[in-house]
Amino acid sequence: MSDVRIRASILGASGYGGGELLRLLLGHPTVEIVQIASARHEGEPAWRLHPNLRGVTDLRFCAPDAIDSCDVLVSCLPHGMAMLQIDRIRGLAPRIIDLSADFRLKDPADYRRWYDIDHARPDLLSKSVYGLAELHREELRTADLIACGGCNATAVILALQPIFRAGLAKIDRTVVEVKVGTSEGGRAFSQGSHHPERSGSIRTYRPIGHRHVAEMCQELELPDNAQLHFTATALDMVRGIHCVAHVFCTREVSEREIWGLYRSAYGDEPFIRIVNDRRGIHRLPDPRRVTGTHFCDIGFTKDPNSSRLVVFSAIDNLVRGAAGQAVQALNLMHDFPETTGLEFPGLHPL
Amino acid sequence: MSDVRIRASILGASGYGGGELLRLLLGHPTVEIVQIASARHEGEPAWRLHPNLRGVTDLRFCAPDAIDSCDVLVSCLPHGMAMLQIDRIRGLAPRIIDLSADFRLKDPADYRRWYDIDHARPDLLSKSVYGLAELHREELRTADLIACGGCNATAVILALQPIFRAGLAKIDRTVVEVKVGTSEGGRAFSQGSHHPERSGSIRTYRPIGHRHVAEMCQELELPDNAQLHFTATALDMVRGIHCVAHVFCTREVSEREIWGLYRSAYGDEPFIRIVNDRRGIHRLPDPRRVTGTHFCDIGFTKDPNSSRLVVFSAIDNLVRGAAGQAVQALNLMHDFPETTGLEFPGLHPL
Amino acid sequence: MSDVRIRASILGASGYGGGELLRLLLGHPTVEIVQIASARHEGEPAWRLHPNLRGVTDLRFCAPDAIDSCDVLVSCLPHGMAMLQIDRIRGLAPRIIDLSADFRLKDPADYRRWYDIDHARPDLLSKSVYGLAELHREELRTADLIACGGCNATAVILALQPIFRAGLAKIDRTVVEVKVGTSEGGRAFSQGSHHPERSGSIRTYRPIGHRHVAEMCQELELPDNAQLHFTATALDMVRGIHCVAHVFCTREVSEREIWGLYRSAYGDEPFIRIVNDRRGIHRLPDPRRVTGTHFCDIGFTKDPNSSRLVVFSAIDNLVRGAAGQAVQALNLMHDFPETTGLEFPGLHPL
Amino acid sequence: MSDVRIRASILGASGYGGGELLRLLLGHPTVEIVQIASARHEGEPAWRLHPNLRGVTDLRFCAPDAIDSCDVLVSCLPHGMAMLQIDRIRGLAPRIIDLSADFRLKDPADYRRWYDIDHARPDLLSKSVYGLAELHREELRTADLIACGGCNATAVILALQPIFRAGLAKIDRTVVEVKVGTSEGGRAFSQGSHHPERSGSIRTYRPIGHRHVAEMCQELELPDNAQLHFTATALDMVRGIHCVAHVFCTREVSEREIWGLYRSAYGDEPFIRIVNDRRGIHRLPDPRRVTGTHFCDIGFTKDPNSSRLVVFSAIDNLVRGAAGQAVQALNLMHDFPETTGLEFPGLHPL
Repeated sequence: MSDVRIRASILGASGYGGGELLRLLLGHPTVEIVQIASARHEGEPAWRLHPNLRGVTDLRFCAPDAIDSCDVLVSCLPHGMAMLQIDRIRGLAPRIIDLSADFRLKDPADYRRWYDIDHARPDLLSKSVYGLAELHREELRTADLIACGGCNATAVILALQPIFRAGLAKIDRTVVEVKVGTSEGGRAFSQGSHHPERSGSIRTYRPIGHRHVAEMCQELELPDNAQLHFTATALDMVRGIHCVAHVFCTREVSEREIWGLYRSAYGDEPFIRIVNDRRGIHRLPDPRRVTGTHFCDIGFTKDPNSSRLVVFSAIDNLVRGAAGQAVQALNLMHDFPETTGLEFPGLHPL
Repeated sequence: MSDVRIRASILGASGYGGGELLRLLLGHPTVEIVQIASARHEGEPAWRLHPNLRGVTDLRFCAPDAIDSCDVLVSCLPHGMAMLQIDRIRGLAPRIIDLSADFRLKDPADYRRWYDIDHARPDLLSKSVYGLAELHREELRTADLIACGGCNATAVILALQPIFRAGLAKIDRTVVEVKVGTSEGGRAFSQGSHHPERSGSIRTYRPIGHRHVAEMCQELELPDNAQLHFTATALDMVRGIHCVAHVFCTREVSEREIWGLYRSAYGDEPFIRIVNDRRGIHRLPDPRRVTGTHFCDIGFTKDPNSSRLVVFSAIDNLVRGAAGQAVQALNLMHDFPETTGLEFPGLHPL
Repeated sequence: MSDVRIRASILGASGYGGGELLRLLLGHPTVEIVQIASARHEGEPAWRLHPNLRGVTDLRFCAPDAIDSCDVLVSCLPHGMAMLQIDRIRGLAPRIIDLSADFRLKDPADYRRWYDIDHARPDLLSKSVYGLAELHREELRTADLIACGGCNATAVILALQPIFRAGLAKIDRTVVEVKVGTSEGGRAFSQGSHHPERSGSIRTYRPIGHRHVAEMCQELELPDNAQLHFTATALDMVRGIHCVAHVFCTREVSEREIWGLYRSAYGDEPFIRIVNDRRGIHRLPDPRRVTGTHFCDIGFTKDPNSSRLVVFSAIDNLVRGAAGQAVQALNLMHDFPETTGLEFPGLHPL
Repeated sequence: MSDVRIRASILGASGYGGGELLRLLLGHPTVEIVQIASARHEGEPAWRLHPNLRGVTDLRFCAPDAIDSCDVLVSCLPHGMAMLQIDRIRGLAPRIIDLSADFRLKDPADYRRWYDIDHARPDLLSKSVYGLAELHREELRTADLIACGGCNATAVILALQPIFRAGLAKIDRTVVEVKVGTSEGGRAFSQGSHHPERSGSIRTYRPIGHRHVAEMCQELELPDNAQLHFTATALDMVRGIHCVAHVFCTREVSEREIWGLYRSAYGDEPFIRIVNDRRGIHRLPDPRRVTGTHFCDIGFTKDPNSSRLVVFSAIDNLVRGAAGQAVQALNLMHDFPETTGLEFPGLHPL
């Protein structure tokens, strides 16, 4: 571990992802937050928008143009904006971590198909590294442009990758449902996010065609034209993703064998827990139990009467699905212990 | 009971109070809803804004100008607007029920003090009747202009009136707290009502100076310059008001005597329940238990070691505190059985 | 419609289903509740357990043995108990409505397989009628033993039946998820239902092997050995079921054609609403919007890029999935207008 | 700061307070948790009861008798039990921190009055130190028996102490309300904590006579026979205390002067924040904003038209009101930096 503190700045720091990153990095012993930028909130103290940071930091938002050069720049700009500013961004720091979707996909055609835009800098797509340490640890160590995975994609990829890699899944039959919190929608308010309308509501906001499917297919290495049947529903909760994946197996398989697959894939991973108990009241992954943490909890149940394997995962969308992923990548990039700044174990009861 | 159906229309029918009124009157056997007006939503079906009414009514919002004459017109216009339109409104129907604050206060100076406006039609203030049947039943029968009470005021007045009327309270020492749901704020959305910011939050939005204090003082017949110390806090719930009033008694009083006061004040009231049990898990008033109903539940605890009497009340702000009050008044006006259209007993568990 | 009031009694009236039934029948103009029985709560007033009924009824629970003969007896006894007492029950009234699972399944072997019991009276299974009016209206009119459908089964069967009947579904590929409220678990408390453990939690309590699958297969008329892949997850809500069914179509089909199927199946049904809007914030079925009502809201989305059709339904488990179903059946049995006592349109916002 | 790690053990570690303490101390760099005891859960892994600690610690509960000597022993035993075992407890470690009420009160008569028991070891009451660093910092440094304050008492004392100490309050007129989460009731479940009964509910569980009043009077140094009018209401939330205190001032006072009192009392306190903004949506203390943290947020509003001063405070009952208080005291006892292990800034949004 290096003793050197690195100097980090954040672009787009007023959003929920930016706020979470700020929280995590303020607690990181070898990172110093130098500047945080927000076009809309220039001059305001960070704690006005991130009230948990009141008394924790005196940092104020600067204008995006005022960002100076630093060791690592994390961009929390919205999709479509990071790609337009990428040259300026890369000019400011040797290492860039981007939380948007702009550098996640390798095939420029996917941006046309899923995001309905022509990618501004397709030449960079092959240079960026997808931010999941469990899949790209070695590449992340030497990366200079990291694209953190989408929150829903993260939950799904981590749940399914060991099964898919083992060739155990009939790919086109897989059906995946996620239940998500309202923080996924960000800070922008609308009639739909108005508390009396939203409270207690169950809203399937993307029955089909969710953009994160593109990442899932890429990272699960599905063949061209393979399909992943994905549906996303928002609940009356703020944080968290609960993923239930229905996988139909290509052959007979025992729960023991599935345990083996997950153990061999994740046995050494510091941030993945297999949650599959026979006793107790918290037997399967539950997003409430990982709130505020970088854990991805994974569990599964094999139907003995059919080929169906049900896989569960639970993450905090703002930590594991965004800011925490950036911190883990930053640690890898700088040869810091991988868990630095991500030790918070969560709260119970909550 | 008359067999005649009366013809009613609603102004400002797109808001939460208007929607609740529409729901109640659609279920009223001797009222026919003729028109519902909304300046902003002209032409849209009612169920788009009040999704519980999908399949229940085909009514669409008309323009406010399109309202024709009818038997009773209920105005759900915002404060300050009803008073400006009152002549036109009164030209449309012989009986007017107003849900705004515009005709609740008798003293024009109170509008200056609490609402910071000069009342446009102070001459009408003495003619309007405050909408609480428990206090003004006989006047309501013959009224042609009814001002339904404010939601918080309703909860407080009903809780305290028997105690105050009996001269049992040291008036200036009384401290009243209400906890309210977010529907009180109406349909207008903002950063503050954005679900991720609002969820789980406890927000004291009016520590002092709440406008409803003016109504409370008037209806509790407090002497001039008397003060009622009132604080309002919004919770993560949509409907409901929970009132806790700390009354300091002018003399020794037993719980038995207090029972007597409430029984004599409310013993025949169809919509007041004394909730003061020694056993069970629902021993005191709880707004969850009156959701959707016109009940005002009232309970109390006398501190044997001090002069403090704690009085509780619970109502649904949209029913008892707004639309239901209009319906009860309408029933009285038209000599319908007072409970007609207000029979829903609420749901448990909920 | 008959003018005659019928006399009804309830067995097992202290549970959540029994309480809901009591609420509905107290508001039913041509039914008189004569007795309500509870072995455990004999002598207690109904409102102690069903606090919404305080001031609404003075009925007290009697001992089960004290039930006298009546016109219709509704049994809310737990699974396995109704079948043991069925002779006594049938001796008390000419018409029996049972809310348990004991008479839902036609094949005695299904009780062995799904409930792990030998059915005590298999001879009665062919005589009972499954309680869904949409599927069995004519049989219900003349039935003397009605078995109301399970709550999850009701949501799934109503969502899928028009599609399955049209031969549009690849049966074995269908994957169904329901999200349910905690009232499904009934009144019995445990560590798992303790508020601090349960609040905010997402708990997949039945990833595979849910007993209601037996009913679904029977009522959807699946061939022997066909499988329905079903998973049930409990949320932090009290009432409601949200069903998402992923159907893979046997052929190309347009959304227009699917509309047609639902319209032809349910166009005249008073308690089914197709909720499939292009605008607004409540575009698809949401259990919050049907809370307290007998509505089953149904919507769907066809994936244009695959054979997947996503079907949604939302019901209130205690009304549509239990007590309301009993009332609709009772209305049919007695030739009352089918919607009597079930007119409550729900609350918004809630 | 000492480099030495101290060895700590926990008695009664299966409860919510014990679990929170375990979480905090596992993250404390100079404390090693040696043993955790639970009479009921001997042999079980800690994470079975504290699921957030899954993968974080392999500690298992030992029998209470199996606790060995250590540097500091924290007792999370229930009220009434710690006093009976205090000799054995003190034999195990030179420094004891007790989370129960057993050593909080100085006057044995208070145990008779408020807890209805004769204190087993009144001789120790004068030796214990009340755990609030803001009031007893110097005594805590040298204490060998610390009694952490009650959760509600902590919120109230910190809110009021600067005002009371300044002689600004008419003591007997003060009215204090707290809204609390359900984790205050601990792990024991009952019909009243059953999710369908508890969800959405507002339950005033202690209108008068709350035991914590004894601590408040003691620590606020009220004269004998002075009264504090206190009411506690539980909401549908798991963690958090929101305190609203209505203080009637003995003389004219400006908000500026009140600012001064709080600044002078708490200006150097690392865990108190004055939250009193004119802008933004989080202007006053809100327990949601301190969840998981040791902060006590304090705000206030002076009514310009009366002598009323409304003071607000918000804490996390399990951290600031229990386990965090133990950690801060432990830090003081051992001359560790006072904030060690308590740096978590909380989450937003949550």
